[in-house]
Amino acid sequence: MGLKGRDVISALDFSRAEVEELFRLAERLREEIAERRILDYARGRLMATVFMEPSTRTRLSFTYAMIRLGGAVVDFGPEAATSRAKGESLEDSLRMVDGYGPDVIVLRQGTPGMAEKVAEVCEAPVINAGDGWNEHPTQALLDVYTIWRELGRVDGVTVGIMGDLKHGRTPSSLSYMLSLFDGVKIWYIAPDPLQIRPEVVERVEGRVEYSKTSKLEDVIEELDVLYVTRLQKERFPDPEEYERLKGSYRVDADFLRKFRKIPIIMHPLPRVWELDESVDSLPQAKYFEQAVNGMYVRAALVKEILGI
Amino acid sequence: MGLKGRDVISALDFSRAEVEELFRLAERLREEIAERRILDYARGRLMATVFMEPSTRTRLSFTYAMIRLGGAVVDFGPEAATSRAKGESLEDSLRMVDGYGPDVIVLRQGTPGMAEKVAEVCEAPVINAGDGWNEHPTQALLDVYTIWRELGRVDGVTVGIMGDLKHGRTPSSLSYMLSLFDGVKIWYIAPDPLQIRPEVVERVEGRVEYSKTSKLEDVIEELDVLYVTRLQKERFPDPEEYERLKGSYRVDADFLRKFRKIPIIMHPLPRVWELDESVDSLPQAKYFEQAVNGMYVRAALVKEILGI
Amino acid sequence: MGLKGRDVISALDFSRAEVEELFRLAERLREEIAERRILDYARGRLMATVFMEPSTRTRLSFTYAMIRLGGAVVDFGPEAATSRAKGESLEDSLRMVDGYGPDVIVLRQGTPGMAEKVAEVCEAPVINAGDGWNEHPTQALLDVYTIWRELGRVDGVTVGIMGDLKHGRTPSSLSYMLSLFDGVKIWYIAPDPLQIRPEVVERVEGRVEYSKTSKLEDVIEELDVLYVTRLQKERFPDPEEYERLKGSYRVDADFLRKFRKIPIIMHPLPRVWELDESVDSLPQAKYFEQAVNGMYVRAALVKEILGI
Repeated sequence: MGLKGRDVISALDFSRAEVEELFRLAERLREEIAERRILDYARGRLMATVFMEPSTRTRLSFTYAMIRLGGAVVDFGPEAATSRAKGESLEDSLRMVDGYGPDVIVLRQGTPGMAEKVAEVCEAPVINAGDGWNEHPTQALLDVYTIWRELGRVDGVTVGIMGDLKHGRTPSSLSYMLSLFDGVKIWYIAPDPLQIRPEVVERVEGRVEYSKTSKLEDVIEELDVLYVTRLQKERFPDPEEYERLKGSYRVDADFLRKFRKIPIIMHPLPRVWELDESVDSLPQAKYFEQAVNGMYVRAALVKEILGI
Repeated sequence: MGLKGRDVISALDFSRAEVEELFRLAERLREEIAERRILDYARGRLMATVFMEPSTRTRLSFTYAMIRLGGAVVDFGPEAATSRAKGESLEDSLRMVDGYGPDVIVLRQGTPGMAEKVAEVCEAPVINAGDGWNEHPTQALLDVYTIWRELGRVDGVTVGIMGDLKHGRTPSSLSYMLSLFDGVKIWYIAPDPLQIRPEVVERVEGRVEYSKTSKLEDVIEELDVLYVTRLQKERFPDPEEYERLKGSYRVDADFLRKFRKIPIIMHPLPRVWELDESVDSLPQAKYFEQAVNGMYVRAALVKEILGI
Repeated sequence: MGLKGRDVISALDFSRAEVEELFRLAERLREEIAERRILDYARGRLMATVFMEPSTRTRLSFTYAMIRLGGAVVDFGPEAATSRAKGESLEDSLRMVDGYGPDVIVLRQGTPGMAEKVAEVCEAPVINAGDGWNEHPTQALLDVYTIWRELGRVDGVTVGIMGDLKHGRTPSSLSYMLSLFDGVKIWYIAPDPLQIRPEVVERVEGRVEYSKTSKLEDVIEELDVLYVTRLQKERFPDPEEYERLKGSYRVDADFLRKFRKIPIIMHPLPRVWELDESVDSLPQAKYFEQAVNGMYVRAALVKEILGI
């Protein structure tokens, strides 16, 4: 694979062959880790994690991934406790981190497109772990890896992505990565003001079949996968509208049992009210596995980027 | 010892034989660490630390313990900088951590009884490092280990536990662990509104002899150990009452020197005004040793739980 | 070298010979790290980092330094998430950390002179990583190391130190370390109310030649090094005075190009407006190298203190 030394900024930075190779490598690492717990691939290698915005899952799963590979991780620290409070620019902060010579930098920050700029000034490969509402390519990797593991294929699947599609980076990166495969159908399920951004569908146009709806009930029986995301109150101009709509974007076991077929249920987590705990015990609930898959596929990605 | 893979939720989860075995192992580890600094027992093993409430001493001593054993530690990070801010439930957060496959999870959080619930959903053994006012079993381990080291025995000792006994988890866990030994006498020294909770004395009833008092002076000469804890202003309904009582629950060198016999002085730390720095230079002051003992006995516990 | 086990509190704790030996060792470590990434010198050794005030650069560069040497680092954690919030004294906190047996403690805190007090109660060697406005000796080490690397010598150089000289610890420590060398000339460039503190010039009196000025333009062509630091708005009693003066203490590429000779430009970073990004592309800009030099010279210092 040609991933050695490469920056990962967008889900579209990967070819289909690369993605599939990463999935197979994640499967092998899963077995090796089950057997030996901590491997030797990254012995003597350093990952720098820089999270300018809160994250637990992504930060921890990259950290565990690197430690499982045998490497070391140095975290930049929570933003409040750092010089960023003194007004330093993101570029300066990252140039500093890069100067200490890490083998890979994992970066989350709030400005769309900034991950790319930072990658240009850094010698180390940069992995975009979320740049505002723009992209989160390794989330897409673990999402599609989960579909691949659970359904045995990605070609031809029908995926419903539900919630606040407008402000999320998960729906965009997931759409991009699904577009690498053949015959995928996406249902974007959201109230009109929170529907998918035009630039996202433009980029997948002609490569996936997609439709929009505001009603989950109308399409759920078509879906192989229902990907639930949060609907945030603060996004609604009118709070009454929010209260009125809330119920339509909430999934619980009783609701799901009304349909002839229940798709596998995914969620990037953390969840709040939109995905009820009653769903946890259904065999279709795959979100906890999905989170764990993140560690393995990120380990695979890091291994390839380090060329080890 | 049968501690391999076991959760540690309450001080009563241990038998006397297990506790004594841990103390002896702590002594052996102390010697090995003095000689070789970092050991190999936990090579390739991972500890996850999750502190949802502030802690320095407990978090650091578990961290040093694991590193001294040769293992690695991944901290969940300060709560404010995490998805918990997004409203995720504690169970979801811990299920995620557990999914990354740590060999042991050390958890502090504020809800009494919640450590047990979390332990049920986690595959990894969970060590309760404080669940609100309820329990802090490894604090009790290091407390009783300190008594055992300093006095050469635990059977038959008389221990005064002073301060806010009602709201503290230290007095309850210490009482439970002392009740594993024979002939222990406990004096609960506190103003009436802050006396020990009924359910605590019920659980030790018939296994330790205990009495309550509000006056340290009356009982100090009987004590082998005086265990000082904080008296918190915010616990008093009447602030004037607090100011009036304050002096009676404060220990300094001048006060101690008034008595024929000075017991060994312990404190879980951090201390504020209740234990004056003038005590530090007395030979009976054992609280700094007590803190250090925490690292060794926690290392012993982790070693046994990991079965290494 | 006799640095083994020594505390580092002031830039004047070093002899010239020791400083030069550290620079040569930093050069050797740079080559070894380029070749092998993580070395074995500090295998089995522990560094405790305690930052009671925000820091990114210093904390990270010590952390990377220790990891590059093959050792482990345990951070005390951000202050807000610790027992310090409960009112524990700094001495008690450090006594605790010291009790866990680290091989070296790196401490930043806000009270001038407190690093020395803490060093007295700790068994482990203590490195002062900033004690309020007082000193920051390892910053001086990396500053002078940068001059030595860039100019090939320190003797006889002329250094302009500009900005808020009164409240900064960087100008004092840098002055002290420069005074170990022969024939150094220092220009202190600042508005009168922010000029260098009298006790600083008293300590270098007779060992360096120095003058004060409020005008950079008047002296810049004399300088081999221009060391820029921040001018903080909150330091000015009169905000209008600040706005009026601001331009005189700001360096950009257009300004520099007006002079016949441009000195090398240094800055402890983080920078805000006082050092414009237009300077970054000039060959004289050395502040990013300076930051990276910090990792190597700190690695050299730690190696010597540990005696490994």
